[in-house]
Amino acid sequence: MVIELTALDSNFTIMIVIIAVAGLIYAVLLAFQTLKHPTGTKEMNRISNAIQVGANSYLKKQLTSIGVMVAILAAILVMLPAHQPEGFPSIRLGRMLAFLMGAGFSATVGYAGMNIATRANVRVAAAANKSFGDAVKIAYRGGTVAGMLTDGLGLLGGIIAFIIFREWAFEVLLGFGFGGTLIALFYRVGGGIFTKAADVGADLVGKVEKGIPEDDPRNAAVVADLVGDNVGDCAGMAADIFESYEVTEVAAMILGLAAFPPAIYGFKGVLFPLMVRAIGVLSSIIGTYAVRLRGERENAMRAITRGYSVSAVASIIGFFILSYFYMQGLTDLNTGSAIVWWNFPVAIMAGIGLAVSTNFLTEHFTSTESKAVKGMSKACQTGAATNLLEGIAVGYESSVWAIVSIAIAIFVSVIIFGTLGVTAFYGVALCGIGQLTLTGNNVAMDTFGPIADNAQGIAEMTKDESFTPRAKDVLADMDSVGNTTKAVTKGIAIASAVIAAVSLFRSYIELPLLLGGEELLILDLSIPLIFIGLLVGGAIPLLFSSISVKAVGKAAAKMIREVRRQFAEIPGLWEGKADPDYERCVSISTRAAQKELLPLGILAIASPLLVGFLLSGVALGGFLGGAIIASQLLAVFMANAGGAFDNAKKSIEDGLYGGKGSDAHKAAVIGDTVGDPLKDTAGPALNPMMKVINLIALLVGPLILQVSVISYIAGEPVSSFAFNPSLLGIAIVIILTAALAFGLWYSKRESEEILE
Amino acid sequence: MVIELTALDSNFTIMIVIIAVAGLIYAVLLAFQTLKHPTGTKEMNRISNAIQVGANSYLKKQLTSIGVMVAILAAILVMLPAHQPEGFPSIRLGRMLAFLMGAGFSATVGYAGMNIATRANVRVAAAANKSFGDAVKIAYRGGTVAGMLTDGLGLLGGIIAFIIFREWAFEVLLGFGFGGTLIALFYRVGGGIFTKAADVGADLVGKVEKGIPEDDPRNAAVVADLVGDNVGDCAGMAADIFESYEVTEVAAMILGLAAFPPAIYGFKGVLFPLMVRAIGVLSSIIGTYAVRLRGERENAMRAITRGYSVSAVASIIGFFILSYFYMQGLTDLNTGSAIVWWNFPVAIMAGIGLAVSTNFLTEHFTSTESKAVKGMSKACQTGAATNLLEGIAVGYESSVWAIVSIAIAIFVSVIIFGTLGVTAFYGVALCGIGQLTLTGNNVAMDTFGPIADNAQGIAEMTKDESFTPRAKDVLADMDSVGNTTKAVTKGIAIASAVIAAVSLFRSYIELPLLLGGEELLILDLSIPLIFIGLLVGGAIPLLFSSISVKAVGKAAAKMIREVRRQFAEIPGLWEGKADPDYERCVSISTRAAQKELLPLGILAIASPLLVGFLLSGVALGGFLGGAIIASQLLAVFMANAGGAFDNAKKSIEDGLYGGKGSDAHKAAVIGDTVGDPLKDTAGPALNPMMKVINLIALLVGPLILQVSVISYIAGEPVSSFAFNPSLLGIAIVIILTAALAFGLWYSKRESEEILE
Repeated sequence: MVIELTALDSNFTIMIVIIAVAGLIYAVLLAFQTLKHPTGTKEMNRISNAIQVGANSYLKKQLTSIGVMVAILAAILVMLPAHQPEGFPSIRLGRMLAFLMGAGFSATVGYAGMNIATRANVRVAAAANKSFGDAVKIAYRGGTVAGMLTDGLGLLGGIIAFIIFREWAFEVLLGFGFGGTLIALFYRVGGGIFTKAADVGADLVGKVEKGIPEDDPRNAAVVADLVGDNVGDCAGMAADIFESYEVTEVAAMILGLAAFPPAIYGFKGVLFPLMVRAIGVLSSIIGTYAVRLRGERENAMRAITRGYSVSAVASIIGFFILSYFYMQGLTDLNTGSAIVWWNFPVAIMAGIGLAVSTNFLTEHFTSTESKAVKGMSKACQTGAATNLLEGIAVGYESSVWAIVSIAIAIFVSVIIFGTLGVTAFYGVALCGIGQLTLTGNNVAMDTFGPIADNAQGIAEMTKDESFTPRAKDVLADMDSVGNTTKAVTKGIAIASAVIAAVSLFRSYIELPLLLGGEELLILDLSIPLIFIGLLVGGAIPLLFSSISVKAVGKAAAKMIREVRRQFAEIPGLWEGKADPDYERCVSISTRAAQKELLPLGILAIASPLLVGFLLSGVALGGFLGGAIIASQLLAVFMANAGGAFDNAKKSIEDGLYGGKGSDAHKAAVIGDTVGDPLKDTAGPALNPMMKVINLIALLVGPLILQVSVISYIAGEPVSSFAFNPSLLGIAIVIILTAALAFGLWYSKRESEEILE
Repeated sequence: MVIELTALDSNFTIMIVIIAVAGLIYAVLLAFQTLKHPTGTKEMNRISNAIQVGANSYLKKQLTSIGVMVAILAAILVMLPAHQPEGFPSIRLGRMLAFLMGAGFSATVGYAGMNIATRANVRVAAAANKSFGDAVKIAYRGGTVAGMLTDGLGLLGGIIAFIIFREWAFEVLLGFGFGGTLIALFYRVGGGIFTKAADVGADLVGKVEKGIPEDDPRNAAVVADLVGDNVGDCAGMAADIFESYEVTEVAAMILGLAAFPPAIYGFKGVLFPLMVRAIGVLSSIIGTYAVRLRGERENAMRAITRGYSVSAVASIIGFFILSYFYMQGLTDLNTGSAIVWWNFPVAIMAGIGLAVSTNFLTEHFTSTESKAVKGMSKACQTGAATNLLEGIAVGYESSVWAIVSIAIAIFVSVIIFGTLGVTAFYGVALCGIGQLTLTGNNVAMDTFGPIADNAQGIAEMTKDESFTPRAKDVLADMDSVGNTTKAVTKGIAIASAVIAAVSLFRSYIELPLLLGGEELLILDLSIPLIFIGLLVGGAIPLLFSSISVKAVGKAAAKMIREVRRQFAEIPGLWEGKADPDYERCVSISTRAAQKELLPLGILAIASPLLVGFLLSGVALGGFLGGAIIASQLLAVFMANAGGAFDNAKKSIEDGLYGGKGSDAHKAAVIGDTVGDPLKDTAGPALNPMMKVINLIALLVGPLILQVSVISYIAGEPVSSFAFNPSLLGIAIVIILTAALAFGLWYSKRESEEILE
């Protein structure tokens, strides 16, 4: 039975399409505006070109090998059994196309955003010679391109699926989410390894061995380092936030469907999150366009924050108006009691509150002014070991409060929507929607970081005297603001990943019901198989991190050898008379990043399937829970410990405890070098990882519930857990085990040649 | 209704008492035998005395302050409501007395074991001048005193409670377990901080600043360091294993009661684990007495392993015979199908298998011969940062496989006893019993470590020429064997802690049923409150570790200042003409260890109560699950990363990559100093912590199920979760919040004066 749209719902659908397209048009206009600015001297362009070429060649290589995996997965997806409701287009085909769309959108957001960023950097550098205000505006608007692409494409994908598939859109959107998340995982892992291999390699040979400054043009790894900032912080982060954006949308639509069945309530539960998103897009357009300096002396951070506040106020007003007129007449199906309209905007605001508290915690544990970082700089006086111990303690503690604040945000939803079941989790999904309301602003802030960083790098590397001292100051200021905005976005990305994963996790439980079954999965921890799932799920993020941390070590060692080789073999390089071969360093990072995609991709995809098909669908539920909690603990620990090590080093470089070159500084550099791969490679990769495994569970769940080796016999109560070996299950388990073993072997293969 | 014992059960009860007492008598005899050996020269005795005085004064101080807390908790316990069955002595009184007994036994095991150890060391040193075989025998038998006390007292407590309280013994035994676990927590935390403050302080001033060897008598912290080995590895570890021993016993008795109700089956389910333990005691007596060298040239490790094998074979034969004659006629209450007798010994052997695989993994990731450690030593060539990154990756990976092996052990139980419910968890508890079967041998091996270490320290510190070169070689060999035995025991302690915690966790779920209710708690992860509990529970081990790691840093800084001061202010100390003030360093470590007991004790006790009383009893269930998984991941990571850092350093000190004094060595020392507090303070403290919170949940569970602020209304199905604010609940929550806040404030108070 196809449920008809009400007139209001039809109008809303059209509005959402228009707003999504408006967001995209805004992004295109900003891109043209950015490219119109002058590009400075020939020398500057030469450097900027090298960065562009490096970044593009890396992404193209990566997209080629990702393309193969995407094609294989698309073929598997279209073969995967799916519930096919009557009167609807093919779910399997739709899901595959949505998967390709999600992957394509995610790749586009990362690629186009980075492309504009790598072309904006030189224009920012050029503008810095004339006006601080112009430089900031170009950098921010260049970053906003990625931001509005994220917004527009995320919303567009959701509404297209809804228009075609209505109440079955969620089945198709799982493919959309999976496509986006998979690309984000690869961008994150690849970008993280690329950037840290280059960074560590450039620093250890340049700063430590040779004693030359950062961004010195004689250092062969310096272009790879600048490229790394783009592929890691710009492409990786944009794709990461894009997938969080779409995945919370998917989860909210699933849970909206479950909490407020369309047969009773129409499509309110499903369309509401999309309308909230649309309001966010409009608010972001207003707020990002408002970012400009009030006079040449204003702090850039203040202007960015002002734009953020404009967006926030506009969106909150919008939420209340929308909810008042739209979210009336809804009841909680479990209790039968009516739900007051203002519950919905309050749940969304819990998400905004969570974003604010995440920022506060990031500041509290990682800013140079914080007690934590001051304690660490002090500890550097007694050596690297005491610095590291302090940093580990700080990282662990920050993780505790991050999880407590997430627990409080979920608790708010419980208070509003009741202690039981799906309505409360719909509230959690709205919280996730709230966190990512201002995604346009967030991604713009984040991308501002690599643009400013690169602009400063270009200024450093330019040998002619084209930069005024004032321009150099301006660029240094912008670089430091960029570090702050990057850190803030990183915190939001992690918190939103957890909320998104929790929403997906709950969606998994709803799966049998949504597919026409009689009851939910019951993930009772007292069932041994579920407890086993929880244990094994908790271990996966550690395995993932272990592999990615090792990969950075391997790649950095290769980079070190190459930079040393160039200094030794290229005549005139040390004297500045010859150029190093930047290209080779870029390609070392590129190849290193490529190599780990396969084993980590296999690990993320095969491990939940193995647990599901071997132990049962409910064990897989436990697995998801364990993976979420361990990922969250580890990701926040890594991000904040890494950030704190970084700033402890900066404090000492700014003159504390003897400044640069002192023993304390050496201790701080060791801490920073340990923290770098944690905060920029291993930690961020956990965000998409925890969502990939949840989406895999949702996509393959229906099959797992039927053919697992130890299976849940559908339709019977929990006590019917029993051995139910099935031939198909056994075959799948054997294949998955082989795949996992291959992945682990492949990633181990080279571990002997580490760091010789 | 009081259920009568069958004649067989009566006989078994008497046998258990006799065997427990036999174990204790054996311990006393060994103690006398050890003390009969000659104590060497006056100079040696002077040093040994200093260690004894330091160790005793530390433990006495700690026991005094623990005593106050124990008294307060005993008073609270006796007031706590308990189910009082008719015809039985007062449960509340019995529980309080059992609590005192558990605390007393645990304190005794630690104290007496350590006392003998500190008196055995000088005798081992003296014997080394004459015979290698004698030295090994004295050290091992001295260690066996602690081992057999653990065995005998653990078994005795269990059987006494059973004799008096029969089917309600578990209620009383919760108190017994809690008492033991609490003391273990304090011993572990206190001992860990004591030993690492002394170790790090002694090394950083002695080895690094002054360039004098380890155990140089001019170093003021050297006695504190030797004392630390005893209070950490001997008292701390013995109490830790004692509480795992008793807690698995308690859990097995509870689950035995639930799986095989006495009204139907008699006391088979309850007495079986105790009989298994009794077989273990007998086997340990045989096996430990068999440990002696076959000739002067045999490797000490081989002799110890031989004794272990003798015990293992004896016990396995015993299990099969016992099961064949005793565990007949049992059925699974869930499925109604009969359980074959050999299922029980197989479940126990899964535990032995887990112990073996734990040893294998510890070796694989931390031995000097392992690829992991070789990779780390190699990484030291490019500096401390690459060493640390390698070590972190190794630690994470080891944690993954440790959890997988635990999951497999639980899975074996599932295969044997079915996928659902309590019988499978009874199997898990039997697996825990199996792991700790040879506790006598394990603790003996562990205590061998500090005895050998101290004997070597005495030889180093003795200024007269009383040691032959051969004796010094013998003592060095024994020290290195001791390091291995300590590492092995540490692995077993962690794995057994997890299995014990899992068994307790399941017991918590059985609680309402055992207390006469209608149904189990259902810990469904899809209930938001339970998910919140899981998140918060996962955070607790990180907070605990953060505090303990910081505490070591603070204390080590104080120690460094004191040792520097003594070198500067005591005339003639550097020339060896005057003695340093060892006493002051011991008292710095003692005070540092004392200080953190309060906040960490509050954290472990108040946090589960707060979650329970605020969020509900089922949220507390989620909390326990989260805490178990995060504790396990963290504890194994810390133990193995720390062990690997230690051995990477040793490899380099043995001549690899430039040996002592090289840059690689410096990098390795940094790694080791970071690893030390992780593996010896923070990690081991998590073992008792995870059991304290589980026992707290079991003890206060009945109250929590009635008065939590958001409560589970007993007797109704899960869907009855609703707000049920209760005045008592609110009052308790306020008190607990205040206590927690105080604890955190107290531990933060001094963090400003870290490491100046």
